[in-house]
Amino acid sequence: MTSTKIERSYIREILDATNKKTISFAGGLPDHNLFPMKELKKASLKVFKNSLSMQYSKSQGNEGLRKIIASLYTNEYDFPTSKDEILITTGSQQAFDVISKTFLKEDVFVQSPSYLGALSAFRILGLKIKEFEDINFLKSNLKETSGLYMMSDFINPTTKCLSKKERKKILELLNKNNPYLIEDAAYSLLDFNGKIRKSISSSYEKSFHLGSFSKIVAPGLRVGWIRAKKELIDELLVSKEALDLHTPTFNQMLLNEYLKKNDLFEHLETIRKEYKEKMQFMSSCFEKYIPSFKFKKPKGGMFIYGEFTEDSFALAKKALAKNIAFVPASVFYTDKRVSNQARFNFSNSSKKEIEKGLKELKNLIS
Amino acid sequence: MTSTKIERSYIREILDATNKKTISFAGGLPDHNLFPMKELKKASLKVFKNSLSMQYSKSQGNEGLRKIIASLYTNEYDFPTSKDEILITTGSQQAFDVISKTFLKEDVFVQSPSYLGALSAFRILGLKIKEFEDINFLKSNLKETSGLYMMSDFINPTTKCLSKKERKKILELLNKNNPYLIEDAAYSLLDFNGKIRKSISSSYEKSFHLGSFSKIVAPGLRVGWIRAKKELIDELLVSKEALDLHTPTFNQMLLNEYLKKNDLFEHLETIRKEYKEKMQFMSSCFEKYIPSFKFKKPKGGMFIYGEFTEDSFALAKKALAKNIAFVPASVFYTDKRVSNQARFNFSNSSKKEIEKGLKELKNLIS
Repeated sequence: MTSTKIERSYIREILDATNKKTISFAGGLPDHNLFPMKELKKASLKVFKNSLSMQYSKSQGNEGLRKIIASLYTNEYDFPTSKDEILITTGSQQAFDVISKTFLKEDVFVQSPSYLGALSAFRILGLKIKEFEDINFLKSNLKETSGLYMMSDFINPTTKCLSKKERKKILELLNKNNPYLIEDAAYSLLDFNGKIRKSISSSYEKSFHLGSFSKIVAPGLRVGWIRAKKELIDELLVSKEALDLHTPTFNQMLLNEYLKKNDLFEHLETIRKEYKEKMQFMSSCFEKYIPSFKFKKPKGGMFIYGEFTEDSFALAKKALAKNIAFVPASVFYTDKRVSNQARFNFSNSSKKEIEKGLKELKNLIS
Repeated sequence: MTSTKIERSYIREILDATNKKTISFAGGLPDHNLFPMKELKKASLKVFKNSLSMQYSKSQGNEGLRKIIASLYTNEYDFPTSKDEILITTGSQQAFDVISKTFLKEDVFVQSPSYLGALSAFRILGLKIKEFEDINFLKSNLKETSGLYMMSDFINPTTKCLSKKERKKILELLNKNNPYLIEDAAYSLLDFNGKIRKSISSSYEKSFHLGSFSKIVAPGLRVGWIRAKKELIDELLVSKEALDLHTPTFNQMLLNEYLKKNDLFEHLETIRKEYKEKMQFMSSCFEKYIPSFKFKKPKGGMFIYGEFTEDSFALAKKALAKNIAFVPASVFYTDKRVSNQARFNFSNSSKKEIEKGLKELKNLIS
């Protein structure tokens, strides 16, 4: 345990600061209009019939749900997996804490810029965070006790996917240095065309592959998971149960019932189509109102990442005062460097809001 | 961060080991037949109408629910409290992690024997756990940076309540040494006669008072809370959001709706009556089948705690092999000392099971 006096996550602060007038491109919020409310409600009627849905349950998680997740790996990710290789977590966020507490003693390497929530979780446990932009940095620095945190698909915030060549290169480094790999797949099922990429974890045993229902069903249930080999899961269980005993029983049974009765990929099809359209629309608004903002259209996920011609942190502050929220890239780095880059979420705003927000943002740009 | 290779909680292991044939007096499980399923289901129908119940939400927790909890303090606990002094946690268990990460750097003092879940949470963060049986031990050892973890009402496992004199003594020590007080009130509302005792926290500002819906509504929702002054809550928020962003939105809205439409104290009346009856029944079975087991009838809570005339750990192992589970006291001490004492839960078994279990246990006693 080291210093714990840490700034609150900028994004969570924005979430707290927003009001009904705010147009928010800040959080990683899915479109709540796409949540399968009717189907979830129907599933709940079944779950409410069993009073054990309100009782304490096992730390590793609901067996039926773990089976469904395991088959998602085996059948869709081309990554053979059994239910014993899945640990249910209270949101994917909790996975960082559970893994770090159990296995990481000293340092963790993170892609830069990186997902804020992961940085906070590592920082609060007193781990040394080592940022890298160039994979080659890992060559001489990664140790057997180190953690390597990364996303391979639709990286938050940059929206990029690692190429096959990059994955191969990383795998080589992993096999050479043998660190713990934490591969965060929060957005992996959100390719606009439904493509599912091969994870690095599937070729590397000392790995944790993190998944979540937050982006593909609903985040308000806080159900995520860790996929790892059984020996690692068994050790994680100790930390998991000390944290919150187990993830809510009801929420797990609800998702289990929902997934048994509904086709997840049919639902994903709806989300992808809608998100692709919103991304296209936001892109066209940027081109129309702020053509100086340089970005590459993402192939999936929920964000557009690009570069202004001025300091994005100062701009974000001005914008928030006018009830427009987005995330300046500086907060995605541990050193809070000055950056012109910024992340815009498109999934949680209507087209009307997207147009209004970017039109107003235009007037704030020097 | 220090050693993390820690044994799994004995109780959680028992939970995992039990099967349908096991008669379990081990866990702290409420009677699932008493969960207000009908009322919760009704509340859920309202909550499902709002798709924001499935969306991300604020780290501090649902405002309506925090208001209800605050009024519980103000009106029932005689402890004036505002909604800003409440932080919702994912079960009360999470409170240990959140508080420790934020404020405790070195050591935590715990009543001995003590609640296992708290011990695990402290241990996993590398804190030095200092057990005390005599309050006077605190006099010269407690520091300003120390934590003091305790229960005041229906202490787990001993089932005792602190006397007014003991509370006064502890308060004097607190005021003298100024440590962080963590007062766990998990069972405080389960007095068989409905008596609510004055917390120590209400007279000491540097305190965290922990509450939970697990024992009074349903544990499967994993919703608990921390009551502390606003300045402390603001600092806790950083750790809370790094852990799981927030406690499930749906679960908080469900409890909020349930508590708005139903009288919690009417429900508590039902639970108390039932638990008192089961406690009386288990007491009479002990007297009938194992009269050598010495115990004092508790005035509330979910356990009977007493003493065999032989090593309870060895007995518990023999019993588990015969599908009877209870918790030997040795696991409630960090030094795993040999003890004849043991804890029996009565809330989660039927009278038939209680009688059958104790009758069979009798045959295993030397």
